[in-house]
Amino acid sequence: MTDYYERDSGLSHQRVNPMEEPRFTGIQTFMRCPLVTDLDLLDIALVGVPYDGAVTNRSGARHGPQAIRQASAMMRSIHHVHRINPYELSRVGDVGDVQFSSMYDHAAVVADITAQYSRLAQAGVMPLSAGGDHSVTYPILKAFAADNPVALVHIDAHTDTWDEFSGSKFMHGTPFRRACEDGLIDPRRTIQIGIRGAQNTAEGWDYSLEQGMRVVFMEEFSQLGVAKVVAEARSIVGNHPTYISFDVDGLDPVFAPGTGTPEVGGLSTLEALSLLRGCRGLNLIGGDVVEVAPSYDPSGNTALVGATLMYEILCLLSESRHQRIG
Amino acid sequence: MTDYYERDSGLSHQRVNPMEEPRFTGIQTFMRCPLVTDLDLLDIALVGVPYDGAVTNRSGARHGPQAIRQASAMMRSIHHVHRINPYELSRVGDVGDVQFSSMYDHAAVVADITAQYSRLAQAGVMPLSAGGDHSVTYPILKAFAADNPVALVHIDAHTDTWDEFSGSKFMHGTPFRRACEDGLIDPRRTIQIGIRGAQNTAEGWDYSLEQGMRVVFMEEFSQLGVAKVVAEARSIVGNHPTYISFDVDGLDPVFAPGTGTPEVGGLSTLEALSLLRGCRGLNLIGGDVVEVAPSYDPSGNTALVGATLMYEILCLLSESRHQRIG
Amino acid sequence: MTDYYERDSGLSHQRVNPMEEPRFTGIQTFMRCPLVTDLDLLDIALVGVPYDGAVTNRSGARHGPQAIRQASAMMRSIHHVHRINPYELSRVGDVGDVQFSSMYDHAAVVADITAQYSRLAQAGVMPLSAGGDHSVTYPILKAFAADNPVALVHIDAHTDTWDEFSGSKFMHGTPFRRACEDGLIDPRRTIQIGIRGAQNTAEGWDYSLEQGMRVVFMEEFSQLGVAKVVAEARSIVGNHPTYISFDVDGLDPVFAPGTGTPEVGGLSTLEALSLLRGCRGLNLIGGDVVEVAPSYDPSGNTALVGATLMYEILCLLSESRHQRIG
Amino acid sequence: MTDYYERDSGLSHQRVNPMEEPRFTGIQTFMRCPLVTDLDLLDIALVGVPYDGAVTNRSGARHGPQAIRQASAMMRSIHHVHRINPYELSRVGDVGDVQFSSMYDHAAVVADITAQYSRLAQAGVMPLSAGGDHSVTYPILKAFAADNPVALVHIDAHTDTWDEFSGSKFMHGTPFRRACEDGLIDPRRTIQIGIRGAQNTAEGWDYSLEQGMRVVFMEEFSQLGVAKVVAEARSIVGNHPTYISFDVDGLDPVFAPGTGTPEVGGLSTLEALSLLRGCRGLNLIGGDVVEVAPSYDPSGNTALVGATLMYEILCLLSESRHQRIG
Amino acid sequence: MTDYYERDSGLSHQRVNPMEEPRFTGIQTFMRCPLVTDLDLLDIALVGVPYDGAVTNRSGARHGPQAIRQASAMMRSIHHVHRINPYELSRVGDVGDVQFSSMYDHAAVVADITAQYSRLAQAGVMPLSAGGDHSVTYPILKAFAADNPVALVHIDAHTDTWDEFSGSKFMHGTPFRRACEDGLIDPRRTIQIGIRGAQNTAEGWDYSLEQGMRVVFMEEFSQLGVAKVVAEARSIVGNHPTYISFDVDGLDPVFAPGTGTPEVGGLSTLEALSLLRGCRGLNLIGGDVVEVAPSYDPSGNTALVGATLMYEILCLLSESRHQRIG
Amino acid sequence: MTDYYERDSGLSHQRVNPMEEPRFTGIQTFMRCPLVTDLDLLDIALVGVPYDGAVTNRSGARHGPQAIRQASAMMRSIHHVHRINPYELSRVGDVGDVQFSSMYDHAAVVADITAQYSRLAQAGVMPLSAGGDHSVTYPILKAFAADNPVALVHIDAHTDTWDEFSGSKFMHGTPFRRACEDGLIDPRRTIQIGIRGAQNTAEGWDYSLEQGMRVVFMEEFSQLGVAKVVAEARSIVGNHPTYISFDVDGLDPVFAPGTGTPEVGGLSTLEALSLLRGCRGLNLIGGDVVEVAPSYDPSGNTALVGATLMYEILCLLSESRHQRIG
Repeated sequence: MTDYYERDSGLSHQRVNPMEEPRFTGIQTFMRCPLVTDLDLLDIALVGVPYDGAVTNRSGARHGPQAIRQASAMMRSIHHVHRINPYELSRVGDVGDVQFSSMYDHAAVVADITAQYSRLAQAGVMPLSAGGDHSVTYPILKAFAADNPVALVHIDAHTDTWDEFSGSKFMHGTPFRRACEDGLIDPRRTIQIGIRGAQNTAEGWDYSLEQGMRVVFMEEFSQLGVAKVVAEARSIVGNHPTYISFDVDGLDPVFAPGTGTPEVGGLSTLEALSLLRGCRGLNLIGGDVVEVAPSYDPSGNTALVGATLMYEILCLLSESRHQRIG
Repeated sequence: MTDYYERDSGLSHQRVNPMEEPRFTGIQTFMRCPLVTDLDLLDIALVGVPYDGAVTNRSGARHGPQAIRQASAMMRSIHHVHRINPYELSRVGDVGDVQFSSMYDHAAVVADITAQYSRLAQAGVMPLSAGGDHSVTYPILKAFAADNPVALVHIDAHTDTWDEFSGSKFMHGTPFRRACEDGLIDPRRTIQIGIRGAQNTAEGWDYSLEQGMRVVFMEEFSQLGVAKVVAEARSIVGNHPTYISFDVDGLDPVFAPGTGTPEVGGLSTLEALSLLRGCRGLNLIGGDVVEVAPSYDPSGNTALVGATLMYEILCLLSESRHQRIG
Repeated sequence: MTDYYERDSGLSHQRVNPMEEPRFTGIQTFMRCPLVTDLDLLDIALVGVPYDGAVTNRSGARHGPQAIRQASAMMRSIHHVHRINPYELSRVGDVGDVQFSSMYDHAAVVADITAQYSRLAQAGVMPLSAGGDHSVTYPILKAFAADNPVALVHIDAHTDTWDEFSGSKFMHGTPFRRACEDGLIDPRRTIQIGIRGAQNTAEGWDYSLEQGMRVVFMEEFSQLGVAKVVAEARSIVGNHPTYISFDVDGLDPVFAPGTGTPEVGGLSTLEALSLLRGCRGLNLIGGDVVEVAPSYDPSGNTALVGATLMYEILCLLSESRHQRIG
Repeated sequence: MTDYYERDSGLSHQRVNPMEEPRFTGIQTFMRCPLVTDLDLLDIALVGVPYDGAVTNRSGARHGPQAIRQASAMMRSIHHVHRINPYELSRVGDVGDVQFSSMYDHAAVVADITAQYSRLAQAGVMPLSAGGDHSVTYPILKAFAADNPVALVHIDAHTDTWDEFSGSKFMHGTPFRRACEDGLIDPRRTIQIGIRGAQNTAEGWDYSLEQGMRVVFMEEFSQLGVAKVVAEARSIVGNHPTYISFDVDGLDPVFAPGTGTPEVGGLSTLEALSLLRGCRGLNLIGGDVVEVAPSYDPSGNTALVGATLMYEILCLLSESRHQRIG
Repeated sequence: MTDYYERDSGLSHQRVNPMEEPRFTGIQTFMRCPLVTDLDLLDIALVGVPYDGAVTNRSGARHGPQAIRQASAMMRSIHHVHRINPYELSRVGDVGDVQFSSMYDHAAVVADITAQYSRLAQAGVMPLSAGGDHSVTYPILKAFAADNPVALVHIDAHTDTWDEFSGSKFMHGTPFRRACEDGLIDPRRTIQIGIRGAQNTAEGWDYSLEQGMRVVFMEEFSQLGVAKVVAEARSIVGNHPTYISFDVDGLDPVFAPGTGTPEVGGLSTLEALSLLRGCRGLNLIGGDVVEVAPSYDPSGNTALVGATLMYEILCLLSESRHQRIG
Repeated sequence: MTDYYERDSGLSHQRVNPMEEPRFTGIQTFMRCPLVTDLDLLDIALVGVPYDGAVTNRSGARHGPQAIRQASAMMRSIHHVHRINPYELSRVGDVGDVQFSSMYDHAAVVADITAQYSRLAQAGVMPLSAGGDHSVTYPILKAFAADNPVALVHIDAHTDTWDEFSGSKFMHGTPFRRACEDGLIDPRRTIQIGIRGAQNTAEGWDYSLEQGMRVVFMEEFSQLGVAKVVAEARSIVGNHPTYISFDVDGLDPVFAPGTGTPEVGGLSTLEALSLLRGCRGLNLIGGDVVEVAPSYDPSGNTALVGATLMYEILCLLSESRHQRIG
């Protein structure tokens, strides 16, 4: 499979595997994967969704895909815990960013994302996306879960099940309410982890609870510990087709300052990585890492964290797909 | 009570509740509360004390109140753990900053702070302050604890019970020694949490211990865990009138780099929040968050942490006052 | 007039003039002016328009008004060149930010801005605004120039006379084309200064030129020098009612890195200040400073520049109004 | 020629011209040009040389090519002064970065660069490079000027004609001495502009002068003005094949703080752009922009400046080549 | 012993102990210790090794010694846990930085370091070093462990037992493989703590394991907890002469963003400090703190952490030496 | 004279000239000069005055001396314009920082500075100081100009001739009024250059003018140009003993953002350097560079500018002293 990741160099007249070159060289695709245009040559698509028109506070997540691509040059292939090489189990490529017919019109953006991800779905390609704000998860689910509600593992400071803000039902605090209403996710197979931060109304929290979602507030998370939360998550989603959505504001702001609505007192990256590794063996259909807004993080760590989370989810997706399909 | 927090807008000809507007809009008072000048219309005063003339190392905490006001736009009303809305239990307002007759003269500053807080005390208004360096706690206590020594919950890297530095008895490492000498705090009802960092003499540590204060060094804190420290704190202060003083250098510098004398290896914000929530139900008379020096924190997180700590203490104060007074 | 700017302090029981307090203290309104809700008590309104939903590249100008308010604490009253004190010639107040009924819907935003500025127009209050992206100038002009096209002094790297982008006719590169089409500005009484930077089509430049606007490209500006450009500007706008619109990307990015579409090789602040001072005595009806996006400027200088430009324009407006009205 | 710059998108099933997409989207090649491996399909190659093993002070220029690629997303096609579109006159592509067989061994690096640029030379492709430290210009010239010494327009704070440092004859202060010794440049057809900063010996300055190079120290530059320096440069290089080497430390550090050996008091970007535009019509064979070390510039402006300088030189090269070859 | 640390001041005509002066004053040696040139007057040497020519990714650790010297002004004398004052137990001095005969030639650098540390070894002076990249530990061990392999406590994200990279056997991922091959360390008395992060081959991990090193991957570390890892480390190194090598990338990047190859999900500083304190009483011969690359950390915390780690190791070394020698 | 600057290295057993070592190595004294305690071995003393207790706005200039020492590692010996090597004409050493008996008491600070500089005066050593805020110039002049008022070349945004602020007559806006009142400077032999920025009263400007100082406001400076201002300065100070005081806020904030009271629209560094070079041949007795507050400048440029200005003044002082004394 190594050939899949090599490319010709006009300068050196050699075949080159960009993943093995010095990290400060080369063109910055996600994980240094090839830029793929023919979806038939692909098992897992790394996709950028550079949209932040649905935030309530600080904008900037439109730069998330580029920042994660840059930081992902630091990623390598063999995982140090389970020694999986996701690039050997599946063909992984960067398909570029979603294109917007009208980036100022949220309805058009939803339609564009849905249409373009539908192409991936039709081609049997599994999506792993870098947002953009959290509103983008709703159209992704429209493309991948239209027929059958999926189970959801959702890490976030916010339940994102509010009804609307400033006149919009599609802003970044609402995707899972819309997904629930449209039958894209099964609320009883949904777990939301890391929830915290004061609110002006309790309406979103209550909606999640009323629908039967398991809401693990941060304080409960830290009392239970990762292992018990993992066990509960596994029991909730079971063997159902499952999507993982990771909003980096689920992490404490010291780990991910580059985000629009930071909430003090969140997960550590070590906890997040353990949580994701605990999802090994689930029946996964896709995932995303959203709300990386690099301009608020002068250290660049948020993008590095985002890239690392993508790599971890990639290992999960690649193994899950390989186990199903071979 | 909602009316209390609304204001007229000349532009829109509407009543507006600034707390519910987008976080990037409007005038930045503490927590977007109204700017109050008539102390009779107030239960809890949010006060800025922009003074850093008493630091030993990096100056800059004079900008703490402005930075916390800005970051506090991110705060909201209903607490996600205990679902208290502090703004419904008490009338909370920003009274602006202490005014200094002579900002270069520490004795005059102490007199100004004492006099202006005495006005709050006389009006029966509970103070929640944003420093400024830690020297400001001494004159606050002079105004509020002159008649009766209070119990103290003190989170900090340093005991601040040193005798003097560079010829001054009122620099920011001495306030609790002075408060002890003046009978403003009861050392046997005092707990100091998070203490750490090498010193050139052991004199401050020893003073605290000799006076009977409970000094929880960081290593003991991390062995005991938050729950046991909370239990001990509650047992020490009992139902005595209690003041909470939170120096952000009690936190590890990654959570609060914007401070003058950072000490590696401190509390996490999650531990700090648990500690504060553990103080629920105490007989509280006021509190402060000090030593936010924003220029040393390019990410802005220290101010966000400072605002969040203030919100947590506000919940405690508002409920405590409400339970006493109704 | 000094009384106009004083306020009561509940803490100190004194009348205080915030403009004369230490710069690191107090509530941060524009220029430390009073927050005014009754438009009858006002001659010149300082207004924030925290909207950046119309940018093509980096978002963040929604934080412009707050950043400029903070930096404006550094402003003082008597101008060092012409010794005007704008606060003595007119009553100047901060009226807060425009409120949005639906911040995600550009048409609604245009309607909100137009409606709220119309209230200022009806009250005979002169507007000086802090953006926000440049799209906000169009609805401001709709409120103030609906009856009669105004003359325009426009400093910018871009002519902002393009037709549309990504399906929108109201994005931040189009306001002066729309204003021209709607008869809000008189193109032959319009001068655009500082224009530069490559483009993918020449269409915007050509539109300006075809409409008869005077377009001073950066290279010509630097050959002519400020004095000649000032002379030409004065001759173009004459005694016609004139609006000044200053996009901070007209400045070189070293002076204003905190903006969405920086173009290397622009005006210095010294040139900009001279240019504005050259507008003294024009028949001015309002002005704005737009495109301050503070998150891209770790030094904070862009906001300081923005506040200084606002102060300079305020001097012009206040004197112009005073000369007309007395 | 537009087709040359388009690519297929697997997501949208459309042909896309990345140069016309929103600047925050897509894969970051130089100027959003296609990544080209077949040198026969190319007229001008944009090349990264990520090497900083030859610096004397702050390292980091190895990240220059990636930083310039990122910033170059802001570049567009039609120049606002002379209205040239370099992409229509020539086929311009990104050929990726030089590959190093042994990045720790300077001699091997020189050999790698020479060999890989020789491939460009043989294919008749004109090189425009992003360094890397200034040592990379020497092997580039070895590939392109081996047969015939070229004329040189060199903008820099340092003459880079020193003999050696810390035992190395190939460190970044020596390339033009080596190039002179090897007959790669003609010293009497060489002009060095912007030279300044104290030195521990005068040896480098003296070498340049003794060899007959025209050394325009910064003070003379600022007395003469750009136009006269341009005239002199044109007279010195005449119609001889000419290479342009732009070290960003020739600029004042406020314009380019992200560099290894900043010297206070240099060129402005506006002067630099005028200088380059003054080179229009010369008989150009290639150029480079070196010493962008992004980690020292938290604002990112250095990379934007680097990208803009590359775009300006690209216009020159494309037109020069077009005039020669058609 | 206090006299040892005092110096004359020409300005004040007084003896001054720099360690007790305000932290923002004076010349920045390591820990404000005297700059010592006569090795006979010294027990423990604080040494800078400003070399980063062996990194694989981001350069900049050459600035580590200067950054740690600056941050070490915050260090004081008496440790708050065990109340040791290392300056009373031993004479501690700054001996400056290693000098390089040819800083571009790795073999020469290895020879220089080896030769200069051999002088310390011959004088019976214990070394505590600030890197520089991790390649510098190999020549230090050549000077101090040439006769007898030492035990090793190694904290790091990487085992640094890889064979080579880009043609070099002495780059910063190889020092402990070389040390093992040369008999400088005893692999069965070696413990490596904090290892994590994907790799392109498993070769380094496998080498460590095959040689009998104890490799505590991060996940195992966090399951075992510090106390058990300390117990195991003590049992592994026993009373054997032991060296401590601390690569700051062993810490999570939020604690040490200023490093060349950060890996998300590492030790906290509190864990690191506990780990070091657990080494009290070992038979120590020296130590180092490496890979501080300050330009990647705008907050400066990495250097503060580096200085604190040095202080902790200094306490260990000083007590260990004192116990052996008296 | 070279021996004067060399020192022994215990590590390498060699004589080393720190000025010629790589810039990232060694102990950071001013300009890498020797740390001198015997004033008899010294002609020119480089002195740090780390005091910022007299500022009106942002504190932080206490860190100026350390920041300038660090940046001064970039300075070298031979000036590129006039080819003077100041280290050959005079013996130049770093004498460390002023020591404060009571850093919180401004009167004590004034007394300490006066006393310690008097020692330099008595030893016939010429002072070149790094502040600290501008209040430190007054006690320096008390030591050096007590008998005879000196002429003054003063570059600054502010005249610093105000009477008092917040109850203090010795804050950093007053030194030259006090100096005038005490007969330390001759106002008719004083020129103040770069003055600008609005004020709340005109009192300081008027005092300067009334006393007969030549006040070159920024606008006049930019109309006259450097050459004419230099000519006027020379004519004003004549051959009188002259002191140069350079407040970095005289520069535009883009050149020196790291300062407490930045004013938009100031001198460029190139103009400042020309101005200083224009002072060549004056009868100089000392100089200072003040108000470098590094925490407000994430790029570090202010300190580099401060170091460069010190080097330029050092050349002037060294030559002037040499011409007088030989």
